[in-house]
Amino acid sequence: MTMQDARTPSAENAPRELGWHKGYLSGSRTDLRVPVRRVHLTNDQDVTLYDTSGPYTDPNIETDVRRGLSPLRQNWIIERDDTEEYAGRELRPEDNGIKHTTPRGGALGRSGRNGGNGSPGLDGLDAVFPGRPRRPRRGREGPDGLASVSQLAYARRGLVTPEMEYVAIRESCSPEFVRDEIAAGRAVLPANVNHPETEPMIIGKNFLVKVNANIGNSAVTSSIEEEVEKMTWATRWGADTVMDLSTGRNIHTTREWVLRNSPVPIGTVPLYQALEKVDGKAEELSWEVYKDTVIEQCEQGVDYMTVHAGVLLRYVPLTARRKTGIVSRGGSIMAAWCLAHHQESFLYTHFAELCDILRSYDVTFSLGDGLRPGSVADANDEAQMAELDTLGELNRIAREHDVQTMIEGPGHVPMHKIKENVDRQQRVCDEAPFYTLGPLTTDIAPGYDHITSGIGAAMIGWWGTAMLCYVTPKEHLGLPDRDDVKTGVITYKIAAHAADLAKGHPAAQEWDDALSDARFEFRWEDQFNLALDPDTARAFHDATLPAEPAKTAHFCSMCGPKFCSMKISRSINEQFGSDQDGTLNEEEIREGMLAKSREFAETGNRVYLPISE
Amino acid sequence: MTMQDARTPSAENAPRELGWHKGYLSGSRTDLRVPVRRVHLTNDQDVTLYDTSGPYTDPNIETDVRRGLSPLRQNWIIERDDTEEYAGRELRPEDNGIKHTTPRGGALGRSGRNGGNGSPGLDGLDAVFPGRPRRPRRGREGPDGLASVSQLAYARRGLVTPEMEYVAIRESCSPEFVRDEIAAGRAVLPANVNHPETEPMIIGKNFLVKVNANIGNSAVTSSIEEEVEKMTWATRWGADTVMDLSTGRNIHTTREWVLRNSPVPIGTVPLYQALEKVDGKAEELSWEVYKDTVIEQCEQGVDYMTVHAGVLLRYVPLTARRKTGIVSRGGSIMAAWCLAHHQESFLYTHFAELCDILRSYDVTFSLGDGLRPGSVADANDEAQMAELDTLGELNRIAREHDVQTMIEGPGHVPMHKIKENVDRQQRVCDEAPFYTLGPLTTDIAPGYDHITSGIGAAMIGWWGTAMLCYVTPKEHLGLPDRDDVKTGVITYKIAAHAADLAKGHPAAQEWDDALSDARFEFRWEDQFNLALDPDTARAFHDATLPAEPAKTAHFCSMCGPKFCSMKISRSINEQFGSDQDGTLNEEEIREGMLAKSREFAETGNRVYLPISE
Repeated sequence: MTMQDARTPSAENAPRELGWHKGYLSGSRTDLRVPVRRVHLTNDQDVTLYDTSGPYTDPNIETDVRRGLSPLRQNWIIERDDTEEYAGRELRPEDNGIKHTTPRGGALGRSGRNGGNGSPGLDGLDAVFPGRPRRPRRGREGPDGLASVSQLAYARRGLVTPEMEYVAIRESCSPEFVRDEIAAGRAVLPANVNHPETEPMIIGKNFLVKVNANIGNSAVTSSIEEEVEKMTWATRWGADTVMDLSTGRNIHTTREWVLRNSPVPIGTVPLYQALEKVDGKAEELSWEVYKDTVIEQCEQGVDYMTVHAGVLLRYVPLTARRKTGIVSRGGSIMAAWCLAHHQESFLYTHFAELCDILRSYDVTFSLGDGLRPGSVADANDEAQMAELDTLGELNRIAREHDVQTMIEGPGHVPMHKIKENVDRQQRVCDEAPFYTLGPLTTDIAPGYDHITSGIGAAMIGWWGTAMLCYVTPKEHLGLPDRDDVKTGVITYKIAAHAADLAKGHPAAQEWDDALSDARFEFRWEDQFNLALDPDTARAFHDATLPAEPAKTAHFCSMCGPKFCSMKISRSINEQFGSDQDGTLNEEEIREGMLAKSREFAETGNRVYLPISE
Repeated sequence: MTMQDARTPSAENAPRELGWHKGYLSGSRTDLRVPVRRVHLTNDQDVTLYDTSGPYTDPNIETDVRRGLSPLRQNWIIERDDTEEYAGRELRPEDNGIKHTTPRGGALGRSGRNGGNGSPGLDGLDAVFPGRPRRPRRGREGPDGLASVSQLAYARRGLVTPEMEYVAIRESCSPEFVRDEIAAGRAVLPANVNHPETEPMIIGKNFLVKVNANIGNSAVTSSIEEEVEKMTWATRWGADTVMDLSTGRNIHTTREWVLRNSPVPIGTVPLYQALEKVDGKAEELSWEVYKDTVIEQCEQGVDYMTVHAGVLLRYVPLTARRKTGIVSRGGSIMAAWCLAHHQESFLYTHFAELCDILRSYDVTFSLGDGLRPGSVADANDEAQMAELDTLGELNRIAREHDVQTMIEGPGHVPMHKIKENVDRQQRVCDEAPFYTLGPLTTDIAPGYDHITSGIGAAMIGWWGTAMLCYVTPKEHLGLPDRDDVKTGVITYKIAAHAADLAKGHPAAQEWDDALSDARFEFRWEDQFNLALDPDTARAFHDATLPAEPAKTAHFCSMCGPKFCSMKISRSINEQFGSDQDGTLNEEEIREGMLAKSREFAETGNRVYLPISE
């Protein structure tokens, strides 16, 4: 691998410009360049960190949200020569939540195939994504239907795709290892052929723990522009994937803007849009409406879809005497449908057909836990576990159809019941990647649920969960704003990284060691630049101490100049630690003691040397 | 127990005034009244919560920081008739960090025994605490020296003190259980006879997990007034004890103001003040200077003291090749002393003598972990574990001398190495209460170390740690301000409560259940009033939805009015949950299905009923 650095500016903080750069690791082909964050330390060392921020942090790449990102995977997809473009589904007004009125047709089309605008709640952005039109692509039609073009299908055939090599470079492992983990179903590489803008990433317990950030407007508030900004903001702070949970108007167009500008895989819950198409009447949902919505989203480029196919009719009454019943939106919708029709849901009865659709676009399943607990009191109950067993069955069916699959998990779980969740999921779902929401470890702190859940997320990540869905401070109270998104992402990056450390990931330990060394050597700027959030670390430091001098001074505001444990400790380190390996023997220790004693006398027995020294 | 309610006003939020009251639980004597927070729900139920806020939240009690709190334990102490007042140590200028200049003597005296003021950095408060003077008290002099007046001594003699009964009521257990846990050394009840203002509380793994908040000015910044305010602010949000880690000037007077106004036990690190007395020259420290400082603080009323007696000369070189050496202030000071004198520290060699002093005031040991790791890389290393074993020896000596003792723990520890810490401490320290700082589970997030450590704190609390020392967002960067103190306390209350839940504490589960019920039934005001931080929960909610109507509306801003999972879920609950116990049989389920199907038809198959209904 070679390193090609590109100077990068900081959107927020000038000093940072000197502290880190956007770099790229090259693969076996010139069009395979893996972005990294290269932190340059004042001791002339570099630290290379995983980077999810996309082209936005590369000053050599000009980005424009109205044009969208360049389709870096396009050639790889075409080269495989197993997909074909086709006319695609015609857009309908209800795709954007326009109820059965005269179609404002053009106003809400896909990829500029239609003109006009003027829809509500769009603020600075037009209703229509103005970028270059692109016809949808899917697996080529053959004798046995549409070709299976999933990374899982390729891996099973022993192929190493450019996407797999890209991921291998990102995760510092061999492409073959990536291939084998995908083939075994232990990892997924979400990459819809209609989302060529995405930078390949992998979700599996034998790779770095990933973080998902939810965005999406609701009937109550928010606009397209806000959602696009939340997406870029979330990836800037480290979100590995983003789910668009929009439920209001312009649902199709919002998703189009998000997809065309997203460097990370995008996930959705198609059921939300399907429900909008039937005016929110769950019992009017049907396989036809749902299928139509899934294809609409497959053609747009959604990389993974949450499907609540595990909510069976007989499980619904099991939630009756819960503290908080059913708290999953999708779960409650499907429960309502089951009760209204008194039969199993169309998601369950048409599951195999759904598999055939998803594999022809390489859309990954995220099998939803519609019956997850909504309070610690309901954790690990009969309803939850019954559904999990069903998700295990569905996972096997999905694999038989070459569809990449991960399994969603809770939710609200007290600490002593967390491990059982991941252990059981891994067992009944044949080690398919687990993707959990938190879990929250207590319900008494609304306003702080990023913390109540960050605790559970770190633990479940350590025990084998592959991706953690963030929770923001606004959970249970309102929709997250820009600051909430950042707080949620940073909190979950902490949880994911703590899990990587506990799992013994070498790259994770190196990052901590680099920051610890900087701390011990009073390299303040290096501490800031290595921090998950350099801006906040620098601001907090400057709030107590005068800015520049203090950053190089050998003390911090906690102890003051005279009173620094690091200083005395370092003198011990210099005494015994220099140019020696292994542990010290008795002789070395005794000599050291005496030498230390002499040294003290020579320096006038001063414990704390003036800062000037 | 009877409940005597006292209406309480909210310092910050009018609506809260209706939501909760300060109440008292009565014991076997009229002067034994245990404060509780009584939350009044809109469904006419009450929830009683543990309350650490002291008289400040009782409108029937007039408080004045210049007068101090009333000495509620004074009669209990006198009744025991085993202590006596005495002249006490004369105050010296250096007690307040006034270096060897002409004594400004009177200027900095204890409890108004001296006049004047004019010292630096006192802002609104005078240098001298103006409250009624009180002569110090200690165990009566007898043939074998001073009487041992510790709660441990009483417990061993089979006595149940009013302090023990007070704690039993607070923790909903029997006074005999409290006595036996203290007698066994599994719990401590910090209560210096010279701090009669304290409301008794207990620290032990078989009781609720406690939280400590650190305050204290430094040479760099802060004032007495700020510290007193931080103390009352910290206890208001739930701090069970407060440590005054002041190191700058007016160290004696700051402590006096804090003690006289604190409803919770106060801890200190006497070594910090002793170092000030020798101009910061560690090698000039001596048993005499240290002993003098300890007695000064015993007479003031400090309830527990951190003593780094486990830092042995031979352990110091073990820290040489650490990433971050010695990060404990006390540890680094004692290491310097050992190196300078090339002998074991006076804390270790005079430990038995120190025990005799502490037990005559009932000051509790907090045996400091001077060699705790300062980075995840150094966790559980030889130096740390060697010192822990020595703390185990010292713990046995302290117990032989009737001194209550707890053991301090790390620090910085990755998740997979946390459990070993508490397991080993419990083993080598005969189950003495463990008191840990965090631990931080990663070092890459300066500015968010309340979260990196809250994760570790929750886990180590679950596994048996009795008290968690908070970490604020400013850790490693600066001194915490008022907001940081609140964030740190709330984060640690979450960790402690999550631990109580995981340990199966009934009272803890009731709190979560009450809030979950309120959530499921859309009782927003009840959710706010039951929240750890009602103000923030209410503010976040109102930020997204219009205030009043939305608080009673049956939807929240996450899903909007049409789209509420709780609503459909509740209809299922009403269908199957009403007046039934146990699980449903097949028959009930089938009937329920059909009934549900009919009901849907009757209500026009509408999943979401208008809010008006």
